[in-house]
Amino acid sequence: MCEANAYLRQDGKEEVIMEMVDKVIPEADGLVLEDIFGRRKQIKARIAELALVDHRIILEKHDQ
Amino acid sequence: MCEANAYLRQDGKEEVIMEMVDKVIPEADGLVLEDIFGRRKQIKARIAELALVDHRIILEKHDQ
Repeated sequence: MCEANAYLRQDGKEEVIMEMVDKVIPEADGLVLEDIFGRRKQIKARIAELALVDHRIILEKHDQ
Repeated sequence: MCEANAYLRQDGKEEVIMEMVDKVIPEADGLVLEDIFGRRKQIKARIAELALVDHRIILEKHDQ
């Protein structure tokens, strides 16, 4: 399976906010993350970087 | 390997613009895509959707 973990980068640290993410859908005010079980999470952030081979999705808050 | 293919969605069609993408890095004016061989491509587009289990990165031009 080629899901990834989503991390929120803040103050130079990275915190896992969702594991086994399948889908990421940008919306007007942020992102919707959906994991491989179909569980969804909305977050007011944007994609800072994808590193798929490392299974990493790095997010940042809008105001950074 | 958990790379994905990047598709540009335009006029309801999807065209592969880069295969075996590892990294995606948003920049001021678009995105930098990097494949698993380190080859880079810049594109004036934004991420419309990620579907990682399907190995798909869908991009759209800014003006859509």
